[in-house]
Amino acid sequence: MLNPEKTGNNVTELPVAAHAARLLDFQTHPDNYRHWKLSTSGAIAGLEMDVSEDGAVFPGYELKLNSYDIGVDIELYDAIQRLRFEHPEVKTVVVSSSKPTMFCAGANIRMLAGASHGHKVNFCKFTNETRNAIEDAGEFSGQRYLCALNGTAAGGGYELALAMDYLILIDDGNAAVSLPEIPLLAVLPGTGGLTRIVDKRKVRRDLADVFCTVEEGVKGRRAVDWRLVDEIVPGSRFDERVAERAREMSLMSDRPDSATGVQLTSLSRTMKTDGIGYDWLDLVIDRENRNVTLQIRGPDSAAPNGMADVITMGDRFWPLALVRQLDDALLHLRFNEPDIGTIIITSAGAAGTVKGHDAFLQRHKDNWLIREIVLYWKRTLKRLDLTSRTSFALVEPGSCFVGLLAELLFAVDRSYMLEGQFEDDDTPAPTIMLSESNFGPLPMPNGLTRLETRFLGEPGSVAGARDHIGRELDAALAAELGLVTFTPDDIDWEDEIRMLLEERASFSPDALVGMEANLRFAGPETLETKIFGRLTAWQNWIFQRPNAVSDAGALRRYGTGLRPEYDKDRI
Amino acid sequence: MLNPEKTGNNVTELPVAAHAARLLDFQTHPDNYRHWKLSTSGAIAGLEMDVSEDGAVFPGYELKLNSYDIGVDIELYDAIQRLRFEHPEVKTVVVSSSKPTMFCAGANIRMLAGASHGHKVNFCKFTNETRNAIEDAGEFSGQRYLCALNGTAAGGGYELALAMDYLILIDDGNAAVSLPEIPLLAVLPGTGGLTRIVDKRKVRRDLADVFCTVEEGVKGRRAVDWRLVDEIVPGSRFDERVAERAREMSLMSDRPDSATGVQLTSLSRTMKTDGIGYDWLDLVIDRENRNVTLQIRGPDSAAPNGMADVITMGDRFWPLALVRQLDDALLHLRFNEPDIGTIIITSAGAAGTVKGHDAFLQRHKDNWLIREIVLYWKRTLKRLDLTSRTSFALVEPGSCFVGLLAELLFAVDRSYMLEGQFEDDDTPAPTIMLSESNFGPLPMPNGLTRLETRFLGEPGSVAGARDHIGRELDAALAAELGLVTFTPDDIDWEDEIRMLLEERASFSPDALVGMEANLRFAGPETLETKIFGRLTAWQNWIFQRPNAVSDAGALRRYGTGLRPEYDKDRI
Repeated sequence: MLNPEKTGNNVTELPVAAHAARLLDFQTHPDNYRHWKLSTSGAIAGLEMDVSEDGAVFPGYELKLNSYDIGVDIELYDAIQRLRFEHPEVKTVVVSSSKPTMFCAGANIRMLAGASHGHKVNFCKFTNETRNAIEDAGEFSGQRYLCALNGTAAGGGYELALAMDYLILIDDGNAAVSLPEIPLLAVLPGTGGLTRIVDKRKVRRDLADVFCTVEEGVKGRRAVDWRLVDEIVPGSRFDERVAERAREMSLMSDRPDSATGVQLTSLSRTMKTDGIGYDWLDLVIDRENRNVTLQIRGPDSAAPNGMADVITMGDRFWPLALVRQLDDALLHLRFNEPDIGTIIITSAGAAGTVKGHDAFLQRHKDNWLIREIVLYWKRTLKRLDLTSRTSFALVEPGSCFVGLLAELLFAVDRSYMLEGQFEDDDTPAPTIMLSESNFGPLPMPNGLTRLETRFLGEPGSVAGARDHIGRELDAALAAELGLVTFTPDDIDWEDEIRMLLEERASFSPDALVGMEANLRFAGPETLETKIFGRLTAWQNWIFQRPNAVSDAGALRRYGTGLRPEYDKDRI
Repeated sequence: MLNPEKTGNNVTELPVAAHAARLLDFQTHPDNYRHWKLSTSGAIAGLEMDVSEDGAVFPGYELKLNSYDIGVDIELYDAIQRLRFEHPEVKTVVVSSSKPTMFCAGANIRMLAGASHGHKVNFCKFTNETRNAIEDAGEFSGQRYLCALNGTAAGGGYELALAMDYLILIDDGNAAVSLPEIPLLAVLPGTGGLTRIVDKRKVRRDLADVFCTVEEGVKGRRAVDWRLVDEIVPGSRFDERVAERAREMSLMSDRPDSATGVQLTSLSRTMKTDGIGYDWLDLVIDRENRNVTLQIRGPDSAAPNGMADVITMGDRFWPLALVRQLDDALLHLRFNEPDIGTIIITSAGAAGTVKGHDAFLQRHKDNWLIREIVLYWKRTLKRLDLTSRTSFALVEPGSCFVGLLAELLFAVDRSYMLEGQFEDDDTPAPTIMLSESNFGPLPMPNGLTRLETRFLGEPGSVAGARDHIGRELDAALAAELGLVTFTPDDIDWEDEIRMLLEERASFSPDALVGMEANLRFAGPETLETKIFGRLTAWQNWIFQRPNAVSDAGALRRYGTGLRPEYDKDRI
């Protein structure tokens, strides 16, 4: 979005890309929502989609018929996060539309038509992650989503519905679910649609083939028979049945009835020319070498004594504060700093206080809030896994890669740990420390822990690492256990890191994106990895193809009355 | 290859594409090999790579240093097939190079630089299938591959090695294995390389990251430590150790010592303007509507009495003859008919004789030759699964979709079965019939049978189908069991099929490729599906990106002394 399209395709710039200098901000608040209405009533929350036509993030298109752009999705993401942290009592979220006959028309087509390739790809990635967060809430957090399809859900609108736990479609002779991308737009239902219909809802593949090529979609009884929705209900009984089903779903939840939520207050950020300062994180950009250092700081005090202290601290509790900042930093880098190719992660602080906080999370893992904090770390580490930038970690004297923070070492593409001390520096040689955090609660998108993925087919190495929980591991032992990539000493350190960064910056960014997307996800594929691997990769390919994105392609010609022109060759 | 590049990228045509009118022929014979030497000695075969520099399929490049193009790989495919059918006694195949210090330099870069996008994609798909066939031989057929790396294996050369069961690298201070695609060419090691290093050989992901970015690769002890090869051996003992290991590997085989092989004779083909006539298959192209009908014929006589008859018939035995023709037809369509977007499968013949042959295959499934024939069907059906064309089946009166042929109904995107008879035609209403062939021996690339994939999460439906083995299923019952998509009657049939084909031809071919690649492979992902899904999709994306393929991209600039120019944005 920030840079003009450079692909060399015959794709001219539309207004979206022309206004690309605008920075995207992922922080918002329900008071500022333009497109959603969030309300709660006991165990049930309502999330009503009411997209403001003139509320687009970029100029050049109107958000008609509850179609969405990144701005609409940023609000959705915010609502989902707040429902989990601020509303422990909410067990079912009912998502519906304020428009009379349209639930949601999907991603705005004129926005897509005008967006740069990079924005299209990152927009889809973020919307995918947000939909995965909906599923995560139901599966792990006792907060289930009921989709009240009080009108048609088309394309991305139906894909949003597909992420929810239960779909009720109004049976009024008109409302349908559809994935019209292929007949209308020559792109894929790429926000999980193709994957979720056959893999999650288990629609038979030939019926899925029919469904995805029928522009008008499927309604009524057939929508249930084909498993596209769970239930159809006539308009006269719709609201009643939705309310009833929401209550039923709430009974399945283990969320507390009367806990106090934690308010997610405004992030304190200092925006600089070359970075952002957060409370527990500095983001420092080296533009010349196109890299950024994420400097993480450990907590400045000991872990709280008990949960009461955590409630008092609210979102200032270090693990929650840091993960919010890390999440924001990753999204900022993705959308606002596209040419920064390498992320370097460092940490600084007292290992003991990180260890204390990490142990606190373990000790209170059954508390709803701690569960939410750990799940937020899980989602944010997955966002790092899925960020198409090279990631390195540097373990230097004074660092505090313990437990939760040590997990970052297994999320990055390579880690470098100093063997010994730096000359003329008294700071002791660095060590790292494992904890239970590295052996279960933070799985990757492939369903395995990062250490299981790292040691695929080597359960003995995972067990060997586990035997060292709680011990200070110096560079030699960390290398022996396979926990770090290289351990240069003081003499080699500076040159080795400099050459590493220069070399990485010299490679084709595209080739690195493809390489990292393949090397990072060894082992089993899941619904989630299929969406980001198979589906996304094919969609990215199509987003480069003239049949979709050239001036005569379907995205550009949609709504003009002109038929798109297709190269008829199959590839 | 047959059509000029139409993507609109700033990609000018090099000689490869300019000579695109040349048809590719996948039939060859060891007597005609230009690039390989095949020899056998008892249980051990030797397959020596000795690429002829001036033996390129297309003009414009020389096949230096055992680099390959599609012509080299067609010979390799032929050799692999013949080893399985003509040499039941061969238990280990030793692959080596005739060049002094180079095992194989991978796909020819100038060929890739000049090839159309479509050729690059189909070239990679075919080479991937051929490497999968090497793994299939070891896993299912008792014929294992030993890779004698008597020189450096770079890029596709190492990817070829990765498909083999055991890799011995000469330890001479020079010979290395490498995947230099990313630093040198800005493309991926896309012939399974990225997937096989982390998923098959379980190289740790950070070491894999290093390996894939080090142009010169890894040699000696480190190659073993990182699991890139199984063994290193000094030159003085290399031949001896290879021979010894080949004998050891032969001991693991269940192939017969003294069975008589079946010669794969020349396919009888009648090339027509709009199709090909084979003995058991006609390929009839409708150019106006861009579809092709594969008209399969059932056997014209009863099944043989015993294996002796099969040996006498050799490759005229119907199941073997048909599958060879089907395989050839699919490859012809992929490379030589890129704008034919839809494959329609029909069958004609006596259900009883198909049933007899199918039962014969079941009865003799432990015989080495029958095992090979069924495995060949498995690979060919996978080739159909992976062919980027829409596939439909029409079940009409006189058809013989029984067992093996019924499996085609579950391989296609949709099937249409006539309910009842055609007016003014005495031919009885069509039926289909299941057999054990549909419940195990012919898994898809995802490891499940096609019926298990079709009924994902519905084991009851698989069991329900199984209960109907051997019964004639009319349209109503076939639909009830979920075995066919639609069952129009005589009144609707013609219009429905016509509209179906017209509609499909109106869609963007790219969007259909992406859709079908996602809908066909529900359920688990395997090494194989990861290669064709995740890895291939990313590679196809990169094959569209200017960093790789524009005039200033790495593929074009390789060897010119000019550095490629990269768009530095990460996508």
